Amino acid sequence: MKQVNVGLLGLGNVGKGTYTILTKHADKISGMSGSQIDVKKILVSDVNKKRDIDVPKEILTTDAESILCDPDIDVIVELIGGIDTAYFYIKQAILRGKHVVTANKAVIATHGPELMDLAKKNRVLLLHEASVAGGIPIITAMLKPLAGNEFTEIIGIVNGTTNYILTQMTENNMEYDTALRLAQEKGFAEADPTSDVEGEDAAYKLCILMLIAFGVYVDPKDIPCEGITKIAKADIDFASQFGYKLKLLAGAKNTNGRLKYYVSPTLVAESHPLASVNNEFNALFVKGDAVGELMFYGKGAGPMPTGSAVVGDIISVAKCIGTDLLDVTPAQPYPVTEDDLELIGESKSMFYINFLVGDEPGSLGKVSTAFGNHGISIQSVMQRSQGEAAVPVIYILHETKRKQLDEALKEITDNNFVQEITSILRVLS
Amino acid sequence: MKQVNVGLLGLGNVGKGTYTILTKHADKISGMSGSQIDVKKILVSDVNKKRDIDVPKEILTTDAESILCDPDIDVIVELIGGIDTAYFYIKQAILRGKHVVTANKAVIATHGPELMDLAKKNRVLLLHEASVAGGIPIITAMLKPLAGNEFTEIIGIVNGTTNYILTQMTENNMEYDTALRLAQEKGFAEADPTSDVEGEDAAYKLCILMLIAFGVYVDPKDIPCEGITKIAKADIDFASQFGYKLKLLAGAKNTNGRLKYYVSPTLVAESHPLASVNNEFNALFVKGDAVGELMFYGKGAGPMPTGSAVVGDIISVAKCIGTDLLDVTPAQPYPVTEDDLELIGESKSMFYINFLVGDEPGSLGKVSTAFGNHGISIQSVMQRSQGEAAVPVIYILHETKRKQLDEALKEITDNNFVQEITSILRVLS
Repeated sequence: MKQVNVGLLGLGNVGKGTYTILTKHADKISGMSGSQIDVKKILVSDVNKKRDIDVPKEILTTDAESILCDPDIDVIVELIGGIDTAYFYIKQAILRGKHVVTANKAVIATHGPELMDLAKKNRVLLLHEASVAGGIPIITAMLKPLAGNEFTEIIGIVNGTTNYILTQMTENNMEYDTALRLAQEKGFAEADPTSDVEGEDAAYKLCILMLIAFGVYVDPKDIPCEGITKIAKADIDFASQFGYKLKLLAGAKNTNGRLKYYVSPTLVAESHPLASVNNEFNALFVKGDAVGELMFYGKGAGPMPTGSAVVGDIISVAKCIGTDLLDVTPAQPYPVTEDDLELIGESKSMFYINFLVGDEPGSLGKVSTAFGNHGISIQSVMQRSQGEAAVPVIYILHETKRKQLDEALKEITDNNFVQEITSILRVLS
Repeated sequence: MKQVNVGLLGLGNVGKGTYTILTKHADKISGMSGSQIDVKKILVSDVNKKRDIDVPKEILTTDAESILCDPDIDVIVELIGGIDTAYFYIKQAILRGKHVVTANKAVIATHGPELMDLAKKNRVLLLHEASVAGGIPIITAMLKPLAGNEFTEIIGIVNGTTNYILTQMTENNMEYDTALRLAQEKGFAEADPTSDVEGEDAAYKLCILMLIAFGVYVDPKDIPCEGITKIAKADIDFASQFGYKLKLLAGAKNTNGRLKYYVSPTLVAESHPLASVNNEFNALFVKGDAVGELMFYGKGAGPMPTGSAVVGDIISVAKCIGTDLLDVTPAQPYPVTEDDLELIGESKSMFYINFLVGDEPGSLGKVSTAFGNHGISIQSVMQRSQGEAAVPVIYILHETKRKQLDEALKEITDNNFVQEITSILRVLS
């Protein structure tokens, strides 16, 4: 049987999960890959650190070069995270003719196209199933069994931390700060949760999904991105009275060659499959022109689910090693349209607006007229007067451009029709 | 670019879907497969029949041999359905060194292991992603990105006809016969719906899923199988009062090397992801020891969704043609356990029992005592007395063996504690 040697960079959570799966299911994995797969070396920061996993000490090293230069190592599995060092290691590995498997969304979203080109030139594979939604096999699904589709839309709940926080706010009546603390206690949020709660993590994943689904690269910094730090419990409650759940969505839609994309807290109708994806779970909702609507649901993070995706990639690489398959497999997804897609970012959307309105007659009429003046039609309005001096009034608006909406809102505030715009949220339509 | 020629057997719904996708997305497909894929011949029953698809008449033929013996054809795509003729064609194709793609669940469930062995011996691929749940890429997912998992459970809603009927009964207050007629009008059920409504179609698919997930073959005839023809609207309503939805499930579970499997109408708690899979949609709920719980949701039938899966397989085959990858890829899934799985079929289950009970004091106590006598504990009971001479009493029972349940029910009926056992349903636990 063919021998395939793996060099593991990193023995944190995902590294441990990957090592555990490779050893526990060695028999099945060799059956599925036609290869004896061994972890030959593991890069760690401290060889003598106490670890809750049984790994032979002699395969641990603090010397990355000794792994990257080892001629017996066929596959480098990068699991150290971060951008710069990981990028350097991946590049070195490719230049030395080694296949690379990574779970690193930040590196792929930042340097993906360059690294994929480099891999193609050096006739090695660069696989990254684990970089989006952990154990959910969305990338392989789009590249292989769904390859006959032109994808028109992909919408993901791709960040478990924010989905956990929003679920707790919705179901257990918590404000944002309390829910964040609970997420941190449960290990679903990091001590510094910025990248998750501000939407950066979701933007990385959306960038990768667009690369796979549409064959185009959008810099994550150019993705219109809004996090969940300003979400008020009150809006979640009002929205639920209209039949909506609030989710942090990462979405992209190809409408006649115009690609629109966003990361944004968004109201999702309760009947939509994404509405019932709760807590730390992730889900990807995909539309293909042949297959129609598909949804993939599962755990988007954690040592074992992420390790599952990493091991799947290692098996794929092992199958190809020593064959001439690499000559015929495109390293990169193929653009779906004849012409380049036009990248236009922000798109029309339905909106939820929460105004604080003084208890004076005619306010509702003035606001509604202002929306009409700007060509925006109203789907529903709800006012809950309880005798206070000012009351919340909620509008759900039909699809409109953000620019139009802002002009209408300017008219409304300039004329003091309302006391305050409490919040503005996208609504999935 | 490599040239790959396809011979299509059948130009019915799935054949048309497949041909449409191959021609419409020829550019993307050649990019993804590294091959120019052409349909060279198509087997039809009548060359001159009027068709709602634009296919050059000169590639149509009624002569199967002229396709199977054509040395220029690399891949045979079998889409005629049925068992015997399809089996003969697939076998002939393999023996002549041609790769085979099929959407035919009946052939794979009936002759799969033999055909897979034959394909391996003849160094060709036999792919059948479309044979289970149409466009949902469950087979590829289990064989590739999830290959590092030991699967412990798979539960599917794999028959769109019965799911449509049960959804209509649940949501639109229909009895079985009315819902079946509606399904037939909408094209979701055939004129003779027997194979769907009696569970045979689901049993075929479960057989294939077990082959892929657990590496074992269970003859579909040996799968305990119950259809939906006896389902009463009243039971769906009672169950919903306990928080359950009724679904036709095809399930298999590996508990410490003992494999249990069934096709059965089953009550699913409303909070379970499978409970919200409605109408003609299919879903597969999979548990892997690394990845945890995953669900795949989408359209399980129809020309384009099924064609999507067929084209995915054609692309996979095209990539491999002319390479030596076949030497290293196992043609069959690898058994998950060291020892053979013990195939035990029926398993313990929770049950829902609907009794018709006379309006006499003490009935409830006698029935409950009888369950206790047989070691069966009760989760909940509901009695709706409305002054009639006989009233329905519903029991939800904790997990028990069917044999134990039958003994308890015998005691209950022998002693006339109830007037009638109206229905018995499994409850997913």
